[in-house]
Amino acid sequence: MTKKLVAELIGTFWLVLGGCGSAVLAANFLSGDAQMGITHLGVSFAFGLTVLTMAFAIGHISGCHLNPAVSVGLWLGGRFSSSQLLPYILVQVVGGILGAGVLYMVASGKAGFEAGGFASNGYGELSPGGYSMGAVLLTEVVMTFMFLIIILGATDDRAPIGLAPIAIGLGLTLIHLISIPVSNTSVNPARSLAAAIFATDSAYLGQVWMFWLAPIVGAALAGVAYKWLGQEDG
Amino acid sequence: MTKKLVAELIGTFWLVLGGCGSAVLAANFLSGDAQMGITHLGVSFAFGLTVLTMAFAIGHISGCHLNPAVSVGLWLGGRFSSSQLLPYILVQVVGGILGAGVLYMVASGKAGFEAGGFASNGYGELSPGGYSMGAVLLTEVVMTFMFLIIILGATDDRAPIGLAPIAIGLGLTLIHLISIPVSNTSVNPARSLAAAIFATDSAYLGQVWMFWLAPIVGAALAGVAYKWLGQEDG
Amino acid sequence: MTKKLVAELIGTFWLVLGGCGSAVLAANFLSGDAQMGITHLGVSFAFGLTVLTMAFAIGHISGCHLNPAVSVGLWLGGRFSSSQLLPYILVQVVGGILGAGVLYMVASGKAGFEAGGFASNGYGELSPGGYSMGAVLLTEVVMTFMFLIIILGATDDRAPIGLAPIAIGLGLTLIHLISIPVSNTSVNPARSLAAAIFATDSAYLGQVWMFWLAPIVGAALAGVAYKWLGQEDG
Amino acid sequence: MTKKLVAELIGTFWLVLGGCGSAVLAANFLSGDAQMGITHLGVSFAFGLTVLTMAFAIGHISGCHLNPAVSVGLWLGGRFSSSQLLPYILVQVVGGILGAGVLYMVASGKAGFEAGGFASNGYGELSPGGYSMGAVLLTEVVMTFMFLIIILGATDDRAPIGLAPIAIGLGLTLIHLISIPVSNTSVNPARSLAAAIFATDSAYLGQVWMFWLAPIVGAALAGVAYKWLGQEDG
Repeated sequence: MTKKLVAELIGTFWLVLGGCGSAVLAANFLSGDAQMGITHLGVSFAFGLTVLTMAFAIGHISGCHLNPAVSVGLWLGGRFSSSQLLPYILVQVVGGILGAGVLYMVASGKAGFEAGGFASNGYGELSPGGYSMGAVLLTEVVMTFMFLIIILGATDDRAPIGLAPIAIGLGLTLIHLISIPVSNTSVNPARSLAAAIFATDSAYLGQVWMFWLAPIVGAALAGVAYKWLGQEDG
Repeated sequence: MTKKLVAELIGTFWLVLGGCGSAVLAANFLSGDAQMGITHLGVSFAFGLTVLTMAFAIGHISGCHLNPAVSVGLWLGGRFSSSQLLPYILVQVVGGILGAGVLYMVASGKAGFEAGGFASNGYGELSPGGYSMGAVLLTEVVMTFMFLIIILGATDDRAPIGLAPIAIGLGLTLIHLISIPVSNTSVNPARSLAAAIFATDSAYLGQVWMFWLAPIVGAALAGVAYKWLGQEDG
Repeated sequence: MTKKLVAELIGTFWLVLGGCGSAVLAANFLSGDAQMGITHLGVSFAFGLTVLTMAFAIGHISGCHLNPAVSVGLWLGGRFSSSQLLPYILVQVVGGILGAGVLYMVASGKAGFEAGGFASNGYGELSPGGYSMGAVLLTEVVMTFMFLIIILGATDDRAPIGLAPIAIGLGLTLIHLISIPVSNTSVNPARSLAAAIFATDSAYLGQVWMFWLAPIVGAALAGVAYKWLGQEDG
Repeated sequence: MTKKLVAELIGTFWLVLGGCGSAVLAANFLSGDAQMGITHLGVSFAFGLTVLTMAFAIGHISGCHLNPAVSVGLWLGGRFSSSQLLPYILVQVVGGILGAGVLYMVASGKAGFEAGGFASNGYGELSPGGYSMGAVLLTEVVMTFMFLIIILGATDDRAPIGLAPIAIGLGLTLIHLISIPVSNTSVNPARSLAAAIFATDSAYLGQVWMFWLAPIVGAALAGVAYKWLGQEDG
């Protein structure tokens, strides 16, 4: 199982470094008065493309979960063995923290850098657009539910072969296109924890529980739902 | 048929939540003076990616229409049975309204939220760019006609296998890239009705007839046209 | 051959309506002070996606050239019969003009509309960025040369099956990402003629010769070059 | 081997012309006060799409490396013969310089053009965002490491067939989305040398050693790492 765990670690490292990295380093970049940054649109593509690229690169090694909520959803959907669940989650968390750590080292190489929120997720005052705790909870549950429906559906035996990485990666892009202003978009507990550790304001860390709870609840519901929905009639 | 209908409901829920959600929540997001929002470009990708992701995830369950005009066009193109037409349209409408409802709940979680147009479609004064009723009618007929040509062609037996979700999803992205300023882009009666129900100004609801009529006319014409065009020569 | 010609006509109609349409209707759209338009980035995607969607939808009917320069390049590359060359070019021109005509009707539905350049191609004073005739000539020759290399290579028997529409469509997107400021990007004589007919300033029409000459020269060179390059050794 | 070398030359020509060309010509384009340029987001897509299009077009001829670091990584990963390594690198360098040369000719066709940095890579004062030498070194090593993991993984026998061009091309897009502000993104020694030759300030040329060293180190590490990671257990 070592290679699977190393693959998950590298993949989650890439998800956090690439996704949060695009947000911290590249989203807002002014050239004189002109906005040359990639904005939330580019950050959405970056998160999605970390998953798309890794799903093609390591999907055949570990399945490319990169996300504790995904592992839980796949387990409840009957696609992943319970014996691998905790080791997967552990290396996802470690990989994510390593990704955030490398990002912190890079970002610190600019004079005057301050971590600030460091692309952390949050609700209430820590939500990018000031959305309430209830709105963030609802958003994260529903978004992760739909993310798992996409994953479970696109990897169904009856779905087009080999194209699930595109569906899943661009699905994560879509989720970010919708929800960055609400929660800064988590749907991934490992990503949320990793970013919060490096945020200047420790209040982000105090809200991380939400971004473990809501994505896992959403993913679990989807695992159960697709188990029924994906069954062939008769 | 239950699973097909549930799949269509979930898919249309996702189309409205994701497409209209990106427009309501994320299109315009200022960070100080800098535009960090995803603009019409991101909204175009969001709409398209809802269809791309669902076509991979539930295409093998329900065919993934998510749109009464698509169901009509496929029916007239000889690809969909008349007995399923009304149930499909019904759950598409219900799913769309549920998607708009969840979006409304999320959006309300921000202090000072007002629904405004709520990403509704409109003509005349309710057109984003102030386009006339005739221009909107022409646009919606032509755009839906081409949308169905893409769908019917990309799912033709002779087209590349398994890739129709990419063609169809990015086709919807393209349609939005062209026509958001004109009609806010419908090509989907269920999406138009769902958004209009939650708009502050009831005038949007009064224009919904146009976004049932024009897409269905365009789709019907394409169904008939492709039936001839897609026939192999003698 | 009727169906092939109708397919080419519809496809080129879509290329001009969608590509030039995104430029005329949606590129620059201010909401208050905020730029909500799709900018040159969105126009680049729109042009590419017209070809991507049509290649999936009608590739199996007509081969989906949509472009006189492509037909010439494929002919010289030994992929297209000389007897079909002129009919293809004729319907491409007619389809393009119809697309520009429908766009004109839509655009006229906004009070105060003026056609202006109408997304026409040009050099010197009519180049978007004021590029010289020589720079525009060089750009159009090289860009069309590379476009045909992509087309000929991606449809080679040894290339991945079924994915050429993605390579070719996104190749056209890439070409626009580079060269809109130079020539407004043609690489397609039918598209250039169609737009110029509707431009307010007749000077655009006077420059159309360049956008027949340069793309056809570039395509012809590529046809000959790939004939050698794509041959298997020994 | 001639055709392989010509294919690599054309491909690297395209990478530099398209990638650096989008940055020099199209990234920042004001229409009045409105930013119509493609920004760093469009430049990221342009670089990635040069590789995506060439991988489909010439992958079956030369393997489509277009990058000395990629050739080294594939060699150390056991995918490329040592006898071809130096000829490949040589034509990549020549092709890149030709691409930059054509770009220079086009760009010079605008009155008042000054090459400036000409999309060169740099650290310290020559970094777009003023990042330190250490941050740039770390970034280039890590980004090229992950680029090669994507390449080696997506072309693994067990990965989905035919889709590696999408994974690799969009992987390069992702890398640019993250790191343009840091190093202007190299991960490709040939691209760095080609741009620096045409930069007005010769200091860029003095920093080119970094963009040979760091990408090759990162690629070499990945070649060795994937040799182990990609091995099937047992």
